[in-house]
Amino acid sequence: MRKLYVVGIGPGDPEGMTLRARRVLEQAEVIAGYGTYAELVKPLFPDKEYLVTPMRREAERCRLAIDAACAGKTVAMISSGDAGVYGMACLALELARGKGVEVEVVPGVTAALSGGALLGAPLSHDFAVISLSDLLTPWELIERRLELAARAELCVALYNPASHRRADYLRRACEILLRQLPPETICGVARCVGREGEGMRVMTLAELADYPADMFTTAFVGNRQTREIDGRMVTPRGYRDV
Amino acid sequence: MRKLYVVGIGPGDPEGMTLRARRVLEQAEVIAGYGTYAELVKPLFPDKEYLVTPMRREAERCRLAIDAACAGKTVAMISSGDAGVYGMACLALELARGKGVEVEVVPGVTAALSGGALLGAPLSHDFAVISLSDLLTPWELIERRLELAARAELCVALYNPASHRRADYLRRACEILLRQLPPETICGVARCVGREGEGMRVMTLAELADYPADMFTTAFVGNRQTREIDGRMVTPRGYRDV
Repeated sequence: MRKLYVVGIGPGDPEGMTLRARRVLEQAEVIAGYGTYAELVKPLFPDKEYLVTPMRREAERCRLAIDAACAGKTVAMISSGDAGVYGMACLALELARGKGVEVEVVPGVTAALSGGALLGAPLSHDFAVISLSDLLTPWELIERRLELAARAELCVALYNPASHRRADYLRRACEILLRQLPPETICGVARCVGREGEGMRVMTLAELADYPADMFTTAFVGNRQTREIDGRMVTPRGYRDV
Repeated sequence: MRKLYVVGIGPGDPEGMTLRARRVLEQAEVIAGYGTYAELVKPLFPDKEYLVTPMRREAERCRLAIDAACAGKTVAMISSGDAGVYGMACLALELARGKGVEVEVVPGVTAALSGGALLGAPLSHDFAVISLSDLLTPWELIERRLELAARAELCVALYNPASHRRADYLRRACEILLRQLPPETICGVARCVGREGEGMRVMTLAELADYPADMFTTAFVGNRQTREIDGRMVTPRGYRDV
């Protein structure tokens, strides 16, 4: 059976991908991906055939990748982070149905983990991953999820906290969280993890509401136990003393 | 400054770790870890000094690793999956405070991602990660989190769904979820990912309640949009049609 690999390449640095992801990309003839991500792997694999489409043309890119696999080529479609977390794996599985192409998903380190490691250990207890992009999800549902996650005392990793079009979304999200959580709740942001300009900062929830996030930011909201330790964000693993 | 590395080694197979994790372990003189995880990396790095303590002796293991780092050794403490998700990173940061040891966390592929990739793409939309172990968390809080996660229409990855002592916890969790979600909600389990006996199965929430999970299982609960496609579990990325 023909096979399509969907590969999470991790945060973006060559060392951030798994050995399995690296091997699959090495063996592929065609690498399909959004332009920015293709540029991240091109220096490692300069001699591959690249199938690149712009953002918001995911279905088209996916169909091209499936067509190439049907034509007998070894194709790897890449996502940054993990291919299953707001990535291309679901679309590949949906669109490959009935095409005689098996989809193999190669997992990777998603931003909640890579950004979390930079900050310290913000997600050491139960947590939620919520995207603030309302491109594919009604904002009312995002609001409801934020409110219920905070009421559940889940730590939260916020993906896509802002873009040009949505400059105030992180503030709006924080205002909802502030109805449930104290303003001094420990939070943090990680930026450009594994890329130029990498950085992190620990702050309170009140400060996070004013933070100028961009497309390269992942934000983290702690629970009532989360603390700042030596400039890092740390959520204890359990509710008993160490 | 002295440094302690806390390294997530991924699901367990040598190819499942990142290149960065592999390099850090290669450069380490001492590898500290729970016995089972130490056995996973020993074949790759047979000549290291190993600091191994049993399960539930995490703080002791962590103190030994910090002591070794203080003594000038290059020490890597390993966790399976990601070091920040129910792993050792938080404990290392807490216990290293004031010891003059910098903690560098090297992220890895946690079970939600490795098991998710095997199943297909169960977590392609907002999700929660919840552990059913009540060793460090009151069961009432776990119940509350399950209920609120389901009401928030979050997909859920359930860690530690069962052990010898907690044979019926997955059933109890499913009963709480069944108060909010239809019994035909698409769910799945992944077992022994990256190890001998690897496998997965897609099923309904009603079936998951009867599934004989063990310590090597991660369970996945879909949202109302989650579907079974060619034997895989797929949550669409958005709420609009492809």
